Amino acid sequence: MKVVKFGGSSVADAGQLQKVKNIVTSEDNRRVVVVSAPGKRYSGDQKVTDLLIKLGESIQHDQVDHEVYKMIVDRFQSMVDELNLPLNVLEEVRKRLEYSMEQVQKKEAKAIDSLKSCGEDGTALILSAYLRQEGYDSSYVNPKEAGILVRDEPGGALVLEESFDQLYRLRERREILVIPGFFGYTPEGTLVTFSRGGSDITGSIVAAGLQAELYENFTDVDSVYCVNPMYVDRPKELTSLTYREMRELSYAGFSVFHDEALIPAFKAKIPVCIKNTNNPSAPGTMITADLPDRDSHVVGIASDKGFLNLYVSKYLMNRELGFGRKLLQILEDEGVSFEHAPSGIDDMSVVLRDHQLPPEKEEVVVGRIKEELKVDTVIIERDMAMIMIVGEGMNQTIGIASQAACAFREADVNIEMINQGSSEVSMMFGVKTEGLADAVQSLYRTFFE
Amino acid sequence: MKVVKFGGSSVADAGQLQKVKNIVTSEDNRRVVVVSAPGKRYSGDQKVTDLLIKLGESIQHDQVDHEVYKMIVDRFQSMVDELNLPLNVLEEVRKRLEYSMEQVQKKEAKAIDSLKSCGEDGTALILSAYLRQEGYDSSYVNPKEAGILVRDEPGGALVLEESFDQLYRLRERREILVIPGFFGYTPEGTLVTFSRGGSDITGSIVAAGLQAELYENFTDVDSVYCVNPMYVDRPKELTSLTYREMRELSYAGFSVFHDEALIPAFKAKIPVCIKNTNNPSAPGTMITADLPDRDSHVVGIASDKGFLNLYVSKYLMNRELGFGRKLLQILEDEGVSFEHAPSGIDDMSVVLRDHQLPPEKEEVVVGRIKEELKVDTVIIERDMAMIMIVGEGMNQTIGIASQAACAFREADVNIEMINQGSSEVSMMFGVKTEGLADAVQSLYRTFFE
Repeated sequence: MKVVKFGGSSVADAGQLQKVKNIVTSEDNRRVVVVSAPGKRYSGDQKVTDLLIKLGESIQHDQVDHEVYKMIVDRFQSMVDELNLPLNVLEEVRKRLEYSMEQVQKKEAKAIDSLKSCGEDGTALILSAYLRQEGYDSSYVNPKEAGILVRDEPGGALVLEESFDQLYRLRERREILVIPGFFGYTPEGTLVTFSRGGSDITGSIVAAGLQAELYENFTDVDSVYCVNPMYVDRPKELTSLTYREMRELSYAGFSVFHDEALIPAFKAKIPVCIKNTNNPSAPGTMITADLPDRDSHVVGIASDKGFLNLYVSKYLMNRELGFGRKLLQILEDEGVSFEHAPSGIDDMSVVLRDHQLPPEKEEVVVGRIKEELKVDTVIIERDMAMIMIVGEGMNQTIGIASQAACAFREADVNIEMINQGSSEVSMMFGVKTEGLADAVQSLYRTFFE
Repeated sequence: MKVVKFGGSSVADAGQLQKVKNIVTSEDNRRVVVVSAPGKRYSGDQKVTDLLIKLGESIQHDQVDHEVYKMIVDRFQSMVDELNLPLNVLEEVRKRLEYSMEQVQKKEAKAIDSLKSCGEDGTALILSAYLRQEGYDSSYVNPKEAGILVRDEPGGALVLEESFDQLYRLRERREILVIPGFFGYTPEGTLVTFSRGGSDITGSIVAAGLQAELYENFTDVDSVYCVNPMYVDRPKELTSLTYREMRELSYAGFSVFHDEALIPAFKAKIPVCIKNTNNPSAPGTMITADLPDRDSHVVGIASDKGFLNLYVSKYLMNRELGFGRKLLQILEDEGVSFEHAPSGIDDMSVVLRDHQLPPEKEEVVVGRIKEELKVDTVIIERDMAMIMIVGEGMNQTIGIASQAACAFREADVNIEMINQGSSEVSMMFGVKTEGLADAVQSLYRTFFE
């Protein structure tokens, strides 16, 4: 059996839900469906989840924003109308929404989570009703009923191990099950949402629990591209990737989905297929544990801006036991998370995401480094970009580094930093942001043309 | 004025001392001379310092090794005889030696240091007597008289700041001063030696204290080579280097001298010239603070064997605040010093000198990493070599990385690791030891032929 997940744009309106119905019913073994909240129908439109957050804030400030409330209900109403569904379906969606609004008004714990999840919940209710109306046996399954148990954490819900066994029982059900994404329940019964983009997480958990043969993740692109289409016109599509490649690519600028969302599926070794709701016959991108048979060693070029380099130098640093550890300790004390820490003989750099070190924190961190480590120099260089070339087995291939370095030279972009040595799947280069586009284009020509 | 230092082979016998006299007296401003203990006169010969250590050990075991004692005295006697010096010179050398032996016998604190320093001390006594006999005004100056004050540390003496002011007063002296290298005195008056190779340190301290215009370091090679002559036949000689380049080169296999020895001279911005006692007209290698005018950006290729890579992987490592710090903390707790720590998304490598992690310590460290960090994998890969290409401004030159990477490809050697990003002066590559020679030769062809 397959678990099929549809993203926000795939369930944005009645027309999209018709495509979803066609996709789900075109194969007998697409038996479990996970849905997001309705996304944007056109550029400039608002996502239902954003509207729900606005509504929640207005209630918290004791000024219910009726206009936003109406916009939310209208989104669901137009779906129900256009699909000719019975009116009680909309009633159920409204009931759930109004119950959550009351909870927020009463300032109940986690009431905002309950309100935020109404987008997914309404979509699931509507989709299952629509499938039934079209003659298919289908049920809405609430995550509590499905057994998605979570622990409430500051960054969002974390799935509990027992969920997987509970979910496995759903295999006995014969009808098409529609589960809203984005939330689960604590063992005490409180609804808690995952981090943003959390419907991918639900899909991944459900696929893992059900031990699905495949987890299909439907979005609005035909496949994962080998490079950000912002830099290269119509880049090559990736037909296959390994989990590790996907994870490394997701790290730097591959925003097809949240890189952590797939982890439950990865751990259970469920293959994942990224497909397009608007063009379901396209083969999509298959993500598997094992290395697929293929020619090229480089499968993708990921890139991201917004890094900074914290450079520290001190004479005889390399004789000082614990220097590197002490530097990282200061960052940790100040809650600053770092990405990489390449070191020379008497100097060390620490690469961070720019937002990790706002000016006020920079002052504290630089002050502590100067005082506690008695360094000679501390320099902060912002406007750094990272480029990552990714491919299984790449590090064992003689010449990849030289091809990459030649590409930078051809683009006339200086490599500020190279980080290779730990990951067997990737090689990372730091450049000044101004050189990013040229470098990525040159790497694309080198490895893909 | 210039401070001139002569190494062990430059003072190995009377013939060498004649060369030293000629070099010192050929320029009026070579006014302060620092000498090592007599080194090997031929392959298979023994260094006087090694003999002194043997002698000391025999005394500590209450079995004075008279044969070794005689070998030491013979070395000095033949110098005195061949240079036709008055007999009282030898008497003085013997007196000093026998006094130190008695101290060791009495188990006085630091008596071994006193004994170990008799090689330099005797050489200085003989050289100054020889200069006087040849008609030059010259004095032996004991480090206590010179004002070389040190603190006793486990790794060897550490110079105290006040030494520099004291040494400055020697500028008033008009004669040629001969100072034995390798030792200083604590403020309480105890003789303490520097770490092995410590005559370079004395020379460097004296040059800094006297604010010499130049510190000339005479050895037995015409200059510093751009690569280890073990790998390349008659490699290019370096006419100039910056301090930073020298320091980076010294780190990995450039054993012309101890990399820390030059630090006092570096800090005082005294230029250093490496010259050959046996060919003093050769220009040598000049080491300065400022970047000399020159074409090539790569000035040297250093390399060293005996590294290992400790590889650790853990799913979602990059979201775990403090992971890198905790890993380094474990190493620090176990007294293991690391060189570099390149990191991927979910993995991290730590490069160490092989001897830092003997098997019994490996077990403890690997056990702690597994237990405390709950990692997925820990792998130790030995037989790693590091190659470093060094040159000021190199990191700002587009194309150096690509030339280097091409050289590895041409040598058919896989790059296991690249560490570039912190030092502005070097780029480091990790390879398997079996590929080291081929890679170094290929890099040499690329950058120097």
